[in-house]
Amino acid sequence: MEFPRKLTEVDLPEAFVNVKAYMKELPAPPLNPATREPVKPEDLAPLFPEGLIRDEATLEPEVPVPTPVLDVLSAWRPTPLFYASELKKALDTPAHIFYKYEGVSPTGSHKPNTAVVQAYYAAQEGRKRLTTETGAGQWGSALSFAGAQFGLEVKVYMVRVSYEQKPGRKALIQAFGANVVPSPSPDTPVGKKYLEENPEHPGSLGIAISEAVYDAANREDTAYSLGSVLDSVLLHQTVIGQEAKAQLAKLGVYPDVVIGCVGGGSNFAGLSFPFVIDRLKGEREARFIAVEPEACPSLTKGEYRYDYGDTAGLTPLLLMHTLGHDFVPPPIHAGGLRYHGMAPLVSKLVKDGVIEARAYPQREVFEAAVLFAKTEGILPAPESAHAVKAAVDEALKAKEEGAERVILFNLSGHGFFDYSAYLDFFGGKM
Amino acid sequence: MEFPRKLTEVDLPEAFVNVKAYMKELPAPPLNPATREPVKPEDLAPLFPEGLIRDEATLEPEVPVPTPVLDVLSAWRPTPLFYASELKKALDTPAHIFYKYEGVSPTGSHKPNTAVVQAYYAAQEGRKRLTTETGAGQWGSALSFAGAQFGLEVKVYMVRVSYEQKPGRKALIQAFGANVVPSPSPDTPVGKKYLEENPEHPGSLGIAISEAVYDAANREDTAYSLGSVLDSVLLHQTVIGQEAKAQLAKLGVYPDVVIGCVGGGSNFAGLSFPFVIDRLKGEREARFIAVEPEACPSLTKGEYRYDYGDTAGLTPLLLMHTLGHDFVPPPIHAGGLRYHGMAPLVSKLVKDGVIEARAYPQREVFEAAVLFAKTEGILPAPESAHAVKAAVDEALKAKEEGAERVILFNLSGHGFFDYSAYLDFFGGKM
Repeated sequence: MEFPRKLTEVDLPEAFVNVKAYMKELPAPPLNPATREPVKPEDLAPLFPEGLIRDEATLEPEVPVPTPVLDVLSAWRPTPLFYASELKKALDTPAHIFYKYEGVSPTGSHKPNTAVVQAYYAAQEGRKRLTTETGAGQWGSALSFAGAQFGLEVKVYMVRVSYEQKPGRKALIQAFGANVVPSPSPDTPVGKKYLEENPEHPGSLGIAISEAVYDAANREDTAYSLGSVLDSVLLHQTVIGQEAKAQLAKLGVYPDVVIGCVGGGSNFAGLSFPFVIDRLKGEREARFIAVEPEACPSLTKGEYRYDYGDTAGLTPLLLMHTLGHDFVPPPIHAGGLRYHGMAPLVSKLVKDGVIEARAYPQREVFEAAVLFAKTEGILPAPESAHAVKAAVDEALKAKEEGAERVILFNLSGHGFFDYSAYLDFFGGKM
Repeated sequence: MEFPRKLTEVDLPEAFVNVKAYMKELPAPPLNPATREPVKPEDLAPLFPEGLIRDEATLEPEVPVPTPVLDVLSAWRPTPLFYASELKKALDTPAHIFYKYEGVSPTGSHKPNTAVVQAYYAAQEGRKRLTTETGAGQWGSALSFAGAQFGLEVKVYMVRVSYEQKPGRKALIQAFGANVVPSPSPDTPVGKKYLEENPEHPGSLGIAISEAVYDAANREDTAYSLGSVLDSVLLHQTVIGQEAKAQLAKLGVYPDVVIGCVGGGSNFAGLSFPFVIDRLKGEREARFIAVEPEACPSLTKGEYRYDYGDTAGLTPLLLMHTLGHDFVPPPIHAGGLRYHGMAPLVSKLVKDGVIEARAYPQREVFEAAVLFAKTEGILPAPESAHAVKAAVDEALKAKEEGAERVILFNLSGHGFFDYSAYLDFFGGKM
């Protein structure tokens, strides 16, 4: 089989597809931490726009993509589906490796897909302002971009150590006109408490979530936005997998293996859920591999239990794979994968045996990333490089077995802002 | 008129188009600095592949794009043509602003367009190795990418001050498997001489060119590659303008004004020459604006005369607008525009009155860039931001005049590696 190197020409999906409509058993609901009762939609109203709450709860198989959202997404979607011809040659494998490249978005990752929906819902319902947290800045820049598109103010609580050491995305957030502050910040009681304990506190994603949630909960004109984990966020990301499916269908191809890296789970879910739905419907039988770092192994080493989404315990309790909400992962370069928990939907599908999980050490991931850059010409984000590594391993397994297997993975972002990680790798500091 | 926000679906151009086939008078030829006689093709053979020498000399109206080149280019081409709907709203202008976005390439600029051609020619003729110079690293990373695609070794002489202060593109060059050294380097006699004078020499593009040329001239297996200025390089870049023309034609549109920033001149020529040809043929009457920084005003303040392309005087003498080959531009953020000369073809067309030139101060350029990021969602490279500024000014002029004019500009690259420039701007350090 011969394939073109790049495929883009498919229509944008007009609906998000909902894996929950096909699951035999739904994940247990989020619980109110005070009452231990299931969270009701109205409990979420102070924080989230109604549109998002509706997307969070819906069991409909499809949710229409609003036209103004489609208009913004169309600036970079459909994203290209690439055939990894050069990587295939280097590995000398009979496997056909395809990858969906989300790095062409304005902020260089898949994050704007849901950011645009969330900003649109908030603007449409009359909110003037969005708050959020960000670690390395992928999500914060995505929401800042989206907010600017709909005329919203955006305030980003950025984990202090990233704010100081990774100024690239801070600059991008500012260029989009948003307000970005290091967290813990003196702007919320939560932040103040940590600063009093330690004025040089490096911050954490959990603390930043607590600050952004507090800010939004205490201002009526403000909605809070979350970049992963939620059912609704995973739903919005399904544009990725739907496009990939349509692009592959043009070539008469269906994947045998679908791969994505997982931090909170959204890029993996975005690519895989449209194919997972086919499997749940009994129509097709792909394998699904969620890849995480050994340093933060929530799926492979965590417990499946109720836990908080943040550090301070302000969020509902979620049933998920977790390392404990006070787990502090070591400082690996894939900042976007340093999360103690996992999306409840991904967790449940792992528990059900639909999705496999796998963890890799950092050095092996970067070796695969550099092979990929040299052959395919794209520098992967350290997060996405985990998916590259698993795709390489699957391609080598196919070679051993002499199998002309089709591997699809999500290259969820580029590594242009992560060059210091590559310099460490080349400098022998990894 | 209503336009879609993004247009990509046109075929790749199968030929480069040659403005020289339509010029009433050709620019005077490059001279051998020793003899002051016109350089003969055979003089160039030690440095350049035959394919490139042929492209440099040809007066044919079209030069076919080799199929293996098309195959590599197809990984990101056609690049999107965007309609700047959000910028238009912000400026409240009747003008229609379109921009061609070259930032989607593997290295984030237009540079790979010619790098791939040059690497292909070299590989096809049996050379094993390429050398080149790079300032901020746009060209060095592009050639490293292209070399890797055709299995060539690449050695990049990178201006020392950039090597030390702008490690991002250094990492990218290494990821593509190339060898990058700070220039002046101890690897060539030219470099040694400067290092002996000053072991901490910051380097310059002129010195780095001298080193790369020396290296290639003294190894038979090696070709030298240049990222701008040459007629052949400008020829290769015409894929940009041809695509833009086809994309606009799909909308029934032809530009009134075509804009690009100029350092050596290649991205400007790449976008504009296909439209310049229409004007030289008497078929259409667009205006053309080449935009440079006030800090390095070769077109607006330089003399039109023969000068060296490099500092050490190793290259042929070129008839061009020049600030003198020993001119050292002040350290502005748009490193790619800090060149003392200008492509002879662009220079000649400016002299002939076909192309207008304009210079802007740095601060105004960044103000336009930030407006652009906030509205259109793309962070421009500081070089490309010069084109943004001119497009904004033309759009405001159209507003004053109440003219529904069509403005087309080249957004030649993204600014993800240039965030420190934006941090300076936001930090009030500009």
